[in-house]
Amino acid sequence: MKLLRHGPIGAEKPGLLHSDGSIRDLSGVVADIGGAALSDAGIAALRAVDAASLPVVAPGTRLGPCVAGTGKFICIGLNYSDHAAETGASVPPEPIIFMKATSAICGPNDPIIIPRGSVKTDWEVELAVIIGTKAKYVSEDKALDHVAGYAITNDVSERAFQTERSGQWTKGKSCDNFGQIGPWLVTRDEVADPQALAMWLTVNGEKVQNGSTRTMVYGVAHLVSYLTQFMTLHPGDVISTGTPPGVGLGMKPPRYLKPGDVVELGVEGLGQQRQDVIADPT
Amino acid sequence: MKLLRHGPIGAEKPGLLHSDGSIRDLSGVVADIGGAALSDAGIAALRAVDAASLPVVAPGTRLGPCVAGTGKFICIGLNYSDHAAETGASVPPEPIIFMKATSAICGPNDPIIIPRGSVKTDWEVELAVIIGTKAKYVSEDKALDHVAGYAITNDVSERAFQTERSGQWTKGKSCDNFGQIGPWLVTRDEVADPQALAMWLTVNGEKVQNGSTRTMVYGVAHLVSYLTQFMTLHPGDVISTGTPPGVGLGMKPPRYLKPGDVVELGVEGLGQQRQDVIADPT
Repeated sequence: MKLLRHGPIGAEKPGLLHSDGSIRDLSGVVADIGGAALSDAGIAALRAVDAASLPVVAPGTRLGPCVAGTGKFICIGLNYSDHAAETGASVPPEPIIFMKATSAICGPNDPIIIPRGSVKTDWEVELAVIIGTKAKYVSEDKALDHVAGYAITNDVSERAFQTERSGQWTKGKSCDNFGQIGPWLVTRDEVADPQALAMWLTVNGEKVQNGSTRTMVYGVAHLVSYLTQFMTLHPGDVISTGTPPGVGLGMKPPRYLKPGDVVELGVEGLGQQRQDVIADPT
Repeated sequence: MKLLRHGPIGAEKPGLLHSDGSIRDLSGVVADIGGAALSDAGIAALRAVDAASLPVVAPGTRLGPCVAGTGKFICIGLNYSDHAAETGASVPPEPIIFMKATSAICGPNDPIIIPRGSVKTDWEVELAVIIGTKAKYVSEDKALDHVAGYAITNDVSERAFQTERSGQWTKGKSCDNFGQIGPWLVTRDEVADPQALAMWLTVNGEKVQNGSTRTMVYGVAHLVSYLTQFMTLHPGDVISTGTPPGVGLGMKPPRYLKPGDVVELGVEGLGQQRQDVIADPT
């Protein structure tokens, strides 16, 4: 099942992608794609709905982030060995955890906004894991039981803010519209192996990232289990699991986004995103 | 005005501290201490209420975190020059920003939970700034207009998780019950100068931190303005502004918390907190 949220910013309604390719509205069935709706029981209840009977959402309606109520937007750093190499870093002995501000979260096709003063805004296609049920001190073999499903994230990053402005990575990762999530949450039953998904990203049609979750250093089950040793995961939390090679920072010379660029990205089985790059309109 | 939240975990109601020392219930007046209630208009509406007419909350009722709907729990690292010195770090040329998980947030007198495997759980008394209205690209002279008020935070930190387990500080800062906030949000009109507040912390009655916000490297107005250059701040966001000297990490030899310890802390005009240190009951 492919769950999503449609409508204007801040007023999104729940929906799903029907097998006929149309988007159907779930507002009459569930309050939102978040909280208890993400549990196995919640998802089973949605699966029991006759999708063909649901109202059709007008084509062209904006999609919001595919999950509501995200308390934590957790990212994993340098989690593809070849990406670590391109940035000049070595593979970490344990997963590197950092947070993006939840205020950075936006819809899959919302623009990438170049913040004021930015000259190094970069892209990162990633596989996102969306937590379905509360998880604390969970073993690796039980970890995927707590996953509602998967989605694509663009972990947009300002490299100067991230690494040249003192200390931690937060300020280069948290700008508004630096976290496209969607287009839909694909429930975990439809993802046979999260460690065998092709992924790609293009800038103005040129393929710059072309990888696979096969080359993740720390896989999804390990990451979920690992994180729960440090903090409780709650329904709606998002874990963005790192990016394969091909980011702008790793190019020689480095290449960064500018207003007018178009970024498209996808992960196998999870759909795709498309973003216009714009100057900050604020 | 001193705004607070009272009741069981996850079911807190809004309230205030009345001038007679009693806690009064605001549930009949406002949904929660968060969102629009934190704007100047929202606070003015609460100020217009006759507190003496509000129901008295039973003495001994638990206090929750004094703000609801916190989307970002932002912290400033090494923001007191003498604390930087005790940890062996130099004062950063710009504020160091990092995030604590919002799932770490708890009430002011809720226990400090030593996570499994922890041997270096440490304390940090801090002045917290609670955002009242949306703020983006705000100048320093307008920054305090966006502040609803102030509170105490204990930025509990696991030093081994923070600095010896790969990469960023997140995993040492985000454990459950690592973020006591309260007892109350003191509205900004009652804090004449946020840069002139004494602050202290004791462990088992022994004073270990004894400082003042006078020695902050980057003051509140600068921090709010600075953060808004990187991300939009929203009502309910919390900025914990750093700790003065006296943390366990800085002692020779270092000293860390163990089950049975009692931590008390306060900031001038903002009340005080008291926490039992316990082993993880999970």
